Amino acid sequence: MSHASPTGMFINETHTDAAIWQFRVSKMLLEGQTQFQTYQICEIPRFGKSLFLDYNIQTSLLDEYIFHECMSQPAMTLHPNPKKVAVAGGGEGATLREALKHNTVVESHMVDIDKELVDMVRDHMKEWHQGAFDDPRNTMHYTDARAWLAERKGYGFDVILSDLPNPHEEGPGQMLFTREYFQICADAMSDDGVLAMQAGTASENYPECMASCIKTLESMDCFAHVAGYYGLVNTFFQPWGFVLASKKHDPHALTVDEITRRFAERGVKNRYYTPRFHHACMTLPEYLVEAVQTRARILTDSAPFVWTA
Amino acid sequence: MSHASPTGMFINETHTDAAIWQFRVSKMLLEGQTQFQTYQICEIPRFGKSLFLDYNIQTSLLDEYIFHECMSQPAMTLHPNPKKVAVAGGGEGATLREALKHNTVVESHMVDIDKELVDMVRDHMKEWHQGAFDDPRNTMHYTDARAWLAERKGYGFDVILSDLPNPHEEGPGQMLFTREYFQICADAMSDDGVLAMQAGTASENYPECMASCIKTLESMDCFAHVAGYYGLVNTFFQPWGFVLASKKHDPHALTVDEITRRFAERGVKNRYYTPRFHHACMTLPEYLVEAVQTRARILTDSAPFVWTA
Amino acid sequence: MSHASPTGMFINETHTDAAIWQFRVSKMLLEGQTQFQTYQICEIPRFGKSLFLDYNIQTSLLDEYIFHECMSQPAMTLHPNPKKVAVAGGGEGATLREALKHNTVVESHMVDIDKELVDMVRDHMKEWHQGAFDDPRNTMHYTDARAWLAERKGYGFDVILSDLPNPHEEGPGQMLFTREYFQICADAMSDDGVLAMQAGTASENYPECMASCIKTLESMDCFAHVAGYYGLVNTFFQPWGFVLASKKHDPHALTVDEITRRFAERGVKNRYYTPRFHHACMTLPEYLVEAVQTRARILTDSAPFVWTA
Amino acid sequence: MSHASPTGMFINETHTDAAIWQFRVSKMLLEGQTQFQTYQICEIPRFGKSLFLDYNIQTSLLDEYIFHECMSQPAMTLHPNPKKVAVAGGGEGATLREALKHNTVVESHMVDIDKELVDMVRDHMKEWHQGAFDDPRNTMHYTDARAWLAERKGYGFDVILSDLPNPHEEGPGQMLFTREYFQICADAMSDDGVLAMQAGTASENYPECMASCIKTLESMDCFAHVAGYYGLVNTFFQPWGFVLASKKHDPHALTVDEITRRFAERGVKNRYYTPRFHHACMTLPEYLVEAVQTRARILTDSAPFVWTA
Repeated sequence: MSHASPTGMFINETHTDAAIWQFRVSKMLLEGQTQFQTYQICEIPRFGKSLFLDYNIQTSLLDEYIFHECMSQPAMTLHPNPKKVAVAGGGEGATLREALKHNTVVESHMVDIDKELVDMVRDHMKEWHQGAFDDPRNTMHYTDARAWLAERKGYGFDVILSDLPNPHEEGPGQMLFTREYFQICADAMSDDGVLAMQAGTASENYPECMASCIKTLESMDCFAHVAGYYGLVNTFFQPWGFVLASKKHDPHALTVDEITRRFAERGVKNRYYTPRFHHACMTLPEYLVEAVQTRARILTDSAPFVWTA
Repeated sequence: MSHASPTGMFINETHTDAAIWQFRVSKMLLEGQTQFQTYQICEIPRFGKSLFLDYNIQTSLLDEYIFHECMSQPAMTLHPNPKKVAVAGGGEGATLREALKHNTVVESHMVDIDKELVDMVRDHMKEWHQGAFDDPRNTMHYTDARAWLAERKGYGFDVILSDLPNPHEEGPGQMLFTREYFQICADAMSDDGVLAMQAGTASENYPECMASCIKTLESMDCFAHVAGYYGLVNTFFQPWGFVLASKKHDPHALTVDEITRRFAERGVKNRYYTPRFHHACMTLPEYLVEAVQTRARILTDSAPFVWTA
Repeated sequence: MSHASPTGMFINETHTDAAIWQFRVSKMLLEGQTQFQTYQICEIPRFGKSLFLDYNIQTSLLDEYIFHECMSQPAMTLHPNPKKVAVAGGGEGATLREALKHNTVVESHMVDIDKELVDMVRDHMKEWHQGAFDDPRNTMHYTDARAWLAERKGYGFDVILSDLPNPHEEGPGQMLFTREYFQICADAMSDDGVLAMQAGTASENYPECMASCIKTLESMDCFAHVAGYYGLVNTFFQPWGFVLASKKHDPHALTVDEITRRFAERGVKNRYYTPRFHHACMTLPEYLVEAVQTRARILTDSAPFVWTA
Repeated sequence: MSHASPTGMFINETHTDAAIWQFRVSKMLLEGQTQFQTYQICEIPRFGKSLFLDYNIQTSLLDEYIFHECMSQPAMTLHPNPKKVAVAGGGEGATLREALKHNTVVESHMVDIDKELVDMVRDHMKEWHQGAFDDPRNTMHYTDARAWLAERKGYGFDVILSDLPNPHEEGPGQMLFTREYFQICADAMSDDGVLAMQAGTASENYPECMASCIKTLESMDCFAHVAGYYGLVNTFFQPWGFVLASKKHDPHALTVDEITRRFAERGVKNRYYTPRFHHACMTLPEYLVEAVQTRARILTDSAPFVWTA
């Protein structure tokens, strides 16, 4: 309980029909609209500078490192020598930033459909990208990520990081959470490639999306190992879910020592995904394990997940 | 994002000055006031039956098991043979319920200052207590928990479970989160006793309370081992923090096999605190480790923690 | 501006897409559901005991007299000798109460489709009906008001008070705001009968409903005089609109002296609709006059008003 | 009831402890802070472009004409030949704009303490001032209105329009709603001068401020006539109160014909304060009459009104 005032400016986000969250905006920094979405960059008390897309909070300075390390580091670390990396989505540039921490990377490709948003981020969210867009190893592509990956069959990406919008009822996300999309990723990956995706909330309130992503990836022969994991993204007011799908390397076999060694070799320093934290974040709570068994289904282009929460 | 309507009944809780949470009330079941607090029992979509005290959500059927297993099970399991148990606070009766799962228990004492609330819970929240109040091993005490424990110096509790309200500016909680209170607990415990406490949020947004509890307990010679841990309490929209303080037994030394064995021997079945989850929930994120080092202080009766978030 | 806390219980009502109103509930008195609607009776600070139907505020003790005097008194007063009165809707019983103040009344009929609601009101909202339901002059009818009136063609009501729900998208209100319904009323009225109706908000934000009621009634030859008026219903956070349609008597010709005389003769005492206030409340602001000319249309069963605000 | 979404951006204003109003912001146009206050200019659905000061709505394009005509026109019209006019406060420039409609005006002085705000208004709220600041008859003064008026004893203003912030607990308004301030105004006025002031809400929920302004002005011998009146400011979700205090001319004696004549002579066209509306808006509802008698007190510098609603 707080004595904070009810008076003020807020952005309200609907979290299922159970709750509405009012984020207090102490200062509006920038507001705009691209062809694809509306955005606000604003200051929130304690959270600091934050980004909303279509009035859903995306990231705040308080803990963007948690989301973005989870998005990139487990997959990058799992691969013994990630040279070729693709980032699908990830407009803030921080998923790319995390991937490029690994000095093994020779080429990266970031594919985001919303050039207007990335241009805005370039100027106004430097704390996120920290120059990653302009890293000499990186090439930007402003187009549909699925279509772009479909054209790279056999390209041999070691790691694909799928940082794409949730499959809301309206919007393009649905076709980015299906078996067919995952197959396109697999086809563009090397024989020991690793895919990581953000998979929606890991909360018990609405685990169906993440659970269905796990179940779908587990149903695909090309992936020898599938592992759900989560990050404590305080800004989202819930643990956030991710899934690793790996053609060869087993994330559960990765030891603390090996992670430590790889970080040292590659010049990687993390704040959240530390060697000792690898196994903790890969240990799913029972409700998620149960949800994969009882509340999940295989997602396909003809029967995709539709986020109705 | 949801198409849920903005129209309806809500209970609003202030989560620091960063946000206000509006919980949707689909049905008000019971509302009242005791000498100490107001309460509402209501239905929330997805959360189910839920309890608010002074307009702060306490528990919901969705995941009360997560909070209450975290409150009881690690301490109960850590002790090799918990016979005498005290529960301080814990009005819903579910912390007691969890403790009594262990068939080693010979006597339990639940001490809650608010008899009116417990009487209400007895009738209207049976899903929580499940008859625990009336377990023949249990004795109820309606009085101040600190004073009651102070009178039990040398009583030899094997486990004390401190499920007490946060140290808000107004209210009695402040004197229940201090070194002096912890000493009273230690004095009432056996030589290998274990104390567990709820310690407030484990979110990066406001970790000072939990971190200060850890630091304070670590500063006390009577406790050989202190371990923070957290539960993914979705109902609280944040990970929730707990602290174990143990005179002799080391929680980090407890193996999956040993936990499995103890559960089997004692007839314990859990949904959240499972053997494989013990180490995961005891692995604190780096921000909490840092908070103990940089944002915590030793809490005393003369300088207690005051929850101002 | 207030230092009131954002924490607490609220009922939220959507006022067009311009605003959401959060009414603070200091105490929930009764909640339930009938075949037709949900209801809450609760205490609101300053407003006192209040009724919500489907989460829309209906009335509060602060100023229910304003709404209900407006609903009944102008029509009752305009008629020189109102003996037979019908109240369509008006579940709280206060519209009826106001009509029965006039000792000229010989018989009244209240027709409300929701018997469960009226039964609840009878027990729990005595401040509103004050026994009016059981006045020996009154008969209760629990059925559809339109159908009931259609069966009373030629019955000769001197006054019909149409206190019916707004024509929301879902719900039965639409057929109660049409030319055909008004004709049914006219047919059931005496040759010098007076109809009064609540007609929705009189605010400039959304005047189309009230304006269309005026325009529709003005288009009907049976009504010699049509007059919109409004009440300052603070509980609704906007002026509220009503329309008088009179077969013979001209409301604008009614003098302060004549109103005073009729009140005295009939034993009527009002707090809002006083003799000096008659002309003030019948003087519509220009925006409403304009709305009748530019934003109104004739409402029919086949093209009724649909409240989309 | 509306199907508008709960998701979006809002500015929340606290309306006493009875309610919080969430205004939907469809577009933030400008946000800033002066030495004295924060401001937002934004688009609200249906209301259009709107201004908030310290998160309290001030004005919207929907009905700013209602507030500003009420602020200026009754006083300007009541005076038979207003040549010298002072506007105290009124930063949007619309009160001044309304005064300058009267071609009798020879000199006007607008006195607002917040030059930064007026500079912002000049550029970004042209729909309000419409060039009034730069009218050759007008002089701007950026200083404390009370102090400025105190220095103009005997200056002979025909009309003073006091468009000043409510006497909130914090803030300078308290000394602008006292007998001493009104005396300063009177001393700066001509022998037949007229003072008009905005006096806070005219709602039954919180009429004490307006009622006390009326009572205080009525207690002063210098004012032969005092008349409260109100405007239906939909943007404020309540009728808004004003008070006229006139040394010689009686507002209740002003006829429709005389108002019509003065408008024609002076080239005045209004949308809200029309000749036929003069008496309607000067007819206070009974609850305000009662409030003057029972809930009002004489406001002085040593015991000013403090807005605690």
